[in-house]
Amino acid sequence: MTEQSPLDLPEDHPFGLHNLPYGVFSTPDEPDRHRIGVRYGDHVLDVHTASTALGSPHADLLAHPTLNALMAAGRAVWQAVRADIRTWLGYPAIEPFLHPLTGVTLHLPIEVADYVDFYASEHHATNVGRMFRPDGDPLTPNWKHLPIGYHGRAGTVVVSGTPVVRPSGQRKAPADADPTFGPTQRLDIEAEVGFVVGTPSALGEPVPQTAFREHVFGVCLLNDWSARDIQAWEYVPLGPFLGKSFATSISAWITPLEALDAARTAPPARDHALLPYLDDGDLEPGGLDLRISVAINGHPIANPPFSAMYWTAAQQLAHMTVNGASLRTGDLYASGTVSGPRVEERGCLLELTWAGRDPVDLPDGKRTFLEDGDEVTLTAWAPGPGTVRIGLGDVVGRIEPAV
Amino acid sequence: MTEQSPLDLPEDHPFGLHNLPYGVFSTPDEPDRHRIGVRYGDHVLDVHTASTALGSPHADLLAHPTLNALMAAGRAVWQAVRADIRTWLGYPAIEPFLHPLTGVTLHLPIEVADYVDFYASEHHATNVGRMFRPDGDPLTPNWKHLPIGYHGRAGTVVVSGTPVVRPSGQRKAPADADPTFGPTQRLDIEAEVGFVVGTPSALGEPVPQTAFREHVFGVCLLNDWSARDIQAWEYVPLGPFLGKSFATSISAWITPLEALDAARTAPPARDHALLPYLDDGDLEPGGLDLRISVAINGHPIANPPFSAMYWTAAQQLAHMTVNGASLRTGDLYASGTVSGPRVEERGCLLELTWAGRDPVDLPDGKRTFLEDGDEVTLTAWAPGPGTVRIGLGDVVGRIEPAV
Repeated sequence: MTEQSPLDLPEDHPFGLHNLPYGVFSTPDEPDRHRIGVRYGDHVLDVHTASTALGSPHADLLAHPTLNALMAAGRAVWQAVRADIRTWLGYPAIEPFLHPLTGVTLHLPIEVADYVDFYASEHHATNVGRMFRPDGDPLTPNWKHLPIGYHGRAGTVVVSGTPVVRPSGQRKAPADADPTFGPTQRLDIEAEVGFVVGTPSALGEPVPQTAFREHVFGVCLLNDWSARDIQAWEYVPLGPFLGKSFATSISAWITPLEALDAARTAPPARDHALLPYLDDGDLEPGGLDLRISVAINGHPIANPPFSAMYWTAAQQLAHMTVNGASLRTGDLYASGTVSGPRVEERGCLLELTWAGRDPVDLPDGKRTFLEDGDEVTLTAWAPGPGTVRIGLGDVVGRIEPAV
Repeated sequence: MTEQSPLDLPEDHPFGLHNLPYGVFSTPDEPDRHRIGVRYGDHVLDVHTASTALGSPHADLLAHPTLNALMAAGRAVWQAVRADIRTWLGYPAIEPFLHPLTGVTLHLPIEVADYVDFYASEHHATNVGRMFRPDGDPLTPNWKHLPIGYHGRAGTVVVSGTPVVRPSGQRKAPADADPTFGPTQRLDIEAEVGFVVGTPSALGEPVPQTAFREHVFGVCLLNDWSARDIQAWEYVPLGPFLGKSFATSISAWITPLEALDAARTAPPARDHALLPYLDDGDLEPGGLDLRISVAINGHPIANPPFSAMYWTAAQQLAHMTVNGASLRTGDLYASGTVSGPRVEERGCLLELTWAGRDPVDLPDGKRTFLEDGDEVTLTAWAPGPGTVRIGLGDVVGRIEPAV
């Protein structure tokens, strides 16, 4: 191993041995050969090829163009494969299996089964309620009793880097007599965290909070692109549809749940008693201390703290299945917009600009909502063991003009 | 061919040569070998085995455990395969490939990609609006301008015959201070028609109404089981979630769109001008004259007419993609509850009993909502050429007690 070896990585690197997120990549010489890889520093370890070369007993699970077969294998296998990869990264002979990130293309790492989006930030829901229902309570009566969620479009989940074409649709301002059709004028982001289900469950059998680690494989960052004018006109009474379904971007890297053990934190104190299936008072802390940053064209605009989320991912899993709905490998569920109590902690432009009233200042001009050409980047990190920071994969998307 | 030959079928049989719906079946000797079949009378033609034996150029597409590969092949192939099967059914030598329906097991015929549920009956939406929002307009302001829809859970779409376990969840009556947890006390049906997408579309490219026949492979019956108490408590502001996600049943048979050509009919006159992408004034008639029957324990309770639907399946397809959302092979979208203007034409118990106020009389007692052990059956037929009736596959489901 030379001094320049990619294996020569400081232990506290955000993509070091404590992290090891999974993704899917291809190389320019074989663009159609999508292979499972693990990020290590600024390289990707070709786990597919390495596992075959090393005769890993799990090589078959790793010889797929998505992570789904590995995810379906269950937690014991996830732990064994992760331990193997840590071992391999100690072998100088592994170096040929490492590719610089700059030389590979990253692909959607999972085949998404069902996609569910929650609404779990009290600060976000309160702000939205104040704007949309100024005459009523900002939170609906059910909000503190259950994690509100809805199904989104799985087929338009795209990997970070995919351009986002400005959607068109019906919009109607309150003063208009009839709706008009055209490109959204209120294109927004929602900074969220996504949870990826590995182990499926049987139809009719609820999954308790305590089974969270058995079912959830890992975590990604997620941008739930939203066309606020389309959404506002369509969403009563059956919820968001075309205002969201045009694209949802996720990070190319899925961070194993185990890498976030040190980031576990207690969720905010609950001010309503919870029904038993949602009560987590006696369980391990269900929150995660993820520090998210949102930037437009490289300029930071917000730092939403995931630790402020009222509902945890374990509660969401228990709620989503309490009616007997089954889980499939590849199910993706997202937290909803992450917003903290402070203005600069809000995870969408709707809140940051208060529905366009207070534009955000960027070096290239003011923004209420996104303009064509804007590039949005979500990044995040979490505390790891000791002083280590665990990096989550970025979510990047650039707005292209409407067709 | 003997007189008892299954090939000796009257031309006007509801599952005769004009129909030929596709399904997936297995036989008791090979229960894990799911094969594509076509219903002919009370038999299923083993299309997989027959196509191989006959050297069909499409045999590869038919050698799958679901219809998805065939559906993805596009309309020209659908037409060619259908023509081939009609030809084969004229050969006495095909008889060994026919299995009596009583001797096979039918399976979910498609791998469902995204599932969307619309709300396209003006009568249904008006009735629901009157019950849930008695002080306002029964229809929301957007209703006549766009086909309202939302995404449902694709992973819990099940085939006819699958038992439905009564779901549990949170319910809160208006008089209760807090929600309680338990089995739904308002388990309901929704008689719907489902449309199955074959040909996919590219992200960012809207699919116009005129491309309906290129993308939609066929039609099924669908029961959108609904827990009204769970739904009522959860659905504001983001729409139905656990009140619907526990199960959605579809017929085992997918009727090719072509078999319903004679059932084409004009939708009801529109009393609001439509934006161009939804305007169908100059297009072929977008409605379908499907006559649905709903029975509980064999006793008919309603006859919802699909011809009364305000929004057509072609309009729904155009709306669903107008923001650039892509279609995938296996996407399933449903009409929403089919209700006509008359009381006996209402497609759910919520409407038929007016939220439980007016129980329905059955031979075994009154019903407001479904009881454990109740078996619900949806059937339907459509006019075919001349005096032929085209049968749609039944959707049957029996309620099992809560866990």
